[in-house]
Amino acid sequence: MPPLKKYLFTPGPVSVPPEVLLEMARPLIHHRTPEFGAVLDSARARMQPLFGTRQEVLLLSSSGTGAMEAAVTNLLAPGDHAIYVNGGKFGERWGKLLKANGMIGHAVISEWGRPVRPAQVAEALTAHPEARAVFVQASETSTCAIHPVGEIGAITRGRDVMLVVDGITSVGVFEQKMDEWGVDAYLTGSQKALMLPPGLAMIALSDRALARASQSRAPRYYFDLTRELKSQRDEHTTAWTPAVSLIFGLNKTLELIHAEGLPQVYARHQLMAEATRAAAAPLGLTLIAPDAPAPGVTGLLTPDGLDGSKLVRLMRDELGVGVQGGQDQMKGRLVRIGHMGYLGAFDMLAAVSALEIGLQRLGHRFTIGAGVAAVQERIARSG
Amino acid sequence: MPPLKKYLFTPGPVSVPPEVLLEMARPLIHHRTPEFGAVLDSARARMQPLFGTRQEVLLLSSSGTGAMEAAVTNLLAPGDHAIYVNGGKFGERWGKLLKANGMIGHAVISEWGRPVRPAQVAEALTAHPEARAVFVQASETSTCAIHPVGEIGAITRGRDVMLVVDGITSVGVFEQKMDEWGVDAYLTGSQKALMLPPGLAMIALSDRALARASQSRAPRYYFDLTRELKSQRDEHTTAWTPAVSLIFGLNKTLELIHAEGLPQVYARHQLMAEATRAAAAPLGLTLIAPDAPAPGVTGLLTPDGLDGSKLVRLMRDELGVGVQGGQDQMKGRLVRIGHMGYLGAFDMLAAVSALEIGLQRLGHRFTIGAGVAAVQERIARSG
Repeated sequence: MPPLKKYLFTPGPVSVPPEVLLEMARPLIHHRTPEFGAVLDSARARMQPLFGTRQEVLLLSSSGTGAMEAAVTNLLAPGDHAIYVNGGKFGERWGKLLKANGMIGHAVISEWGRPVRPAQVAEALTAHPEARAVFVQASETSTCAIHPVGEIGAITRGRDVMLVVDGITSVGVFEQKMDEWGVDAYLTGSQKALMLPPGLAMIALSDRALARASQSRAPRYYFDLTRELKSQRDEHTTAWTPAVSLIFGLNKTLELIHAEGLPQVYARHQLMAEATRAAAAPLGLTLIAPDAPAPGVTGLLTPDGLDGSKLVRLMRDELGVGVQGGQDQMKGRLVRIGHMGYLGAFDMLAAVSALEIGLQRLGHRFTIGAGVAAVQERIARSG
Repeated sequence: MPPLKKYLFTPGPVSVPPEVLLEMARPLIHHRTPEFGAVLDSARARMQPLFGTRQEVLLLSSSGTGAMEAAVTNLLAPGDHAIYVNGGKFGERWGKLLKANGMIGHAVISEWGRPVRPAQVAEALTAHPEARAVFVQASETSTCAIHPVGEIGAITRGRDVMLVVDGITSVGVFEQKMDEWGVDAYLTGSQKALMLPPGLAMIALSDRALARASQSRAPRYYFDLTRELKSQRDEHTTAWTPAVSLIFGLNKTLELIHAEGLPQVYARHQLMAEATRAAAAPLGLTLIAPDAPAPGVTGLLTPDGLDGSKLVRLMRDELGVGVQGGQDQMKGRLVRIGHMGYLGAFDMLAAVSALEIGLQRLGHRFTIGAGVAAVQERIARSG
């Protein structure tokens, strides 16, 4: 029998607060009504501080990958050159998106788990002066590392080069400063720090990005951001039928986030991440991203000879604790514990406890309880 | 004060059954798990009879417009020619989608409210022998008319021409025979007869459409159907993070639909449509689509001199009854009453009652109660 109580620590999808689940279960309304317009306006305005922007935030009914493609096809034309930071599976996705849409992408490679060095981006721009945009993740979910977006912005903002940031596991997790950093397109998805089911994405554009989008020649229709801006800003509705219940949910979840207070929300993620990281050494595990660990998800390399995929399955199927393994080159070698969603610091005790039990059952040797004790110690030291 | 009880008779979004709302409020699970895979497989299999197909049904996290674009970009390449039936706002959208994606669309015009004549399609194919596809709506939501898909299929199936059908207000409403009719791509959305919130679309492809999709040169990534087929059929998950809760909801709603029985579901829509149409004459109103009225939504032309937009607002704001007005050239001249979603025949009494009260308040002269009596009479005659 699988355990009754399930715990979800995957870095998306995440647990949704019960009051948000109920909000989304409200009777549907039509999306061309003043009532819907008020909810849409509210949700869009409440998103702005999470991006650190005064620009309009647009909602798209898609996953985050849809918003990534929207950034590509609205800011570039076929044949355009662009730089993208490839330091993991999602960085690599920029390259695939560019290629699929007829653009020429030049990769700046950073080792999995390491942040890109801003100088690498500057060098790439010198090597490819025709590049019209730089694409990067604020937090690379596959490697649990963050990239220095602010420093990259200092390089791109003085040039006619757009900076496009995937904030899927960073917006709402830790402080983002879109306007201050000079980011031109900042996007995220619903199923991470926004504590919602997947199916909704958000994107904010700078003035120069909006100007370029209005002139883009790339083929697109569903993800036409100029059209969405007109609908959402001027008509208080969306261009296409939107995921109405998710937008209800977003407005509610943002109400909860702002009631908690953004500094408190960010501190909560930071505490969960630090508490989880504190368990690594006592369990004889290594962090995949020691230099620039992401506050939204912690990645622990599994011991040599221990099958990480088996560990993740055991934790899920026998213990009811959902964590995620590694992707691509990290398959079977990584355990990722998410800190996003309807979670508090005390939940990390459960996550690390289950991790310990899983490791023990698979033969890894360590002092049982040492990880949990480290988590508890870190929580006790907070506020 | 607005009324407490709201009634939703818009042709999408629609009312969602309470048990489906609760299903969607279930705790989230990760989409790369056997548990999710089982739900996905079940929902996809349960969709097949609604399309009338034995082909694989793919789910997309987008609105129906996203699935329309997926059909265009997976079956055609830039520069390709295609025929599209333009008999309303959604027919027109095919033309916009083709243009936005660099294809050359040739419109077959049918008057708003009238079905296209199959001979028109045959003539267009003769005039444009280079056309590689025909795009049509099974039910044109904006005009409440149906097009003869089976007869068009008889024209296209013997040629190297794909037939693409928008079934957004027809799949689950009345019987569709994708395989028998020779349809190559059949798509629909969640927020109509499937009784769900918007945010999920479904598309089924014939073998020859799958073959062509696998070779398509059109730019696309989020809507790459070859990739989705591989993920959904072979890996029991989706290529991108899917709208998990909507897929839970879809599986549940399809359980309810099959428990009711497809013939009964189709008869229910038909009865609602016939009962609503029966009210037209007693109220001195004309049907916009008398020859081929859609079973999913009934369109009534408003009397000369009476502002249809005002009528719709009055019904919604003062009576709590949501119906929809006309779009584009029908703005202010049409009232559309939907028969899709969690509705039964008796709900049409409420819809027509509110319509009568709205018409009366705006000065239209007729015998109050005559429409409701006609609805009641039609319901009483059924089974």
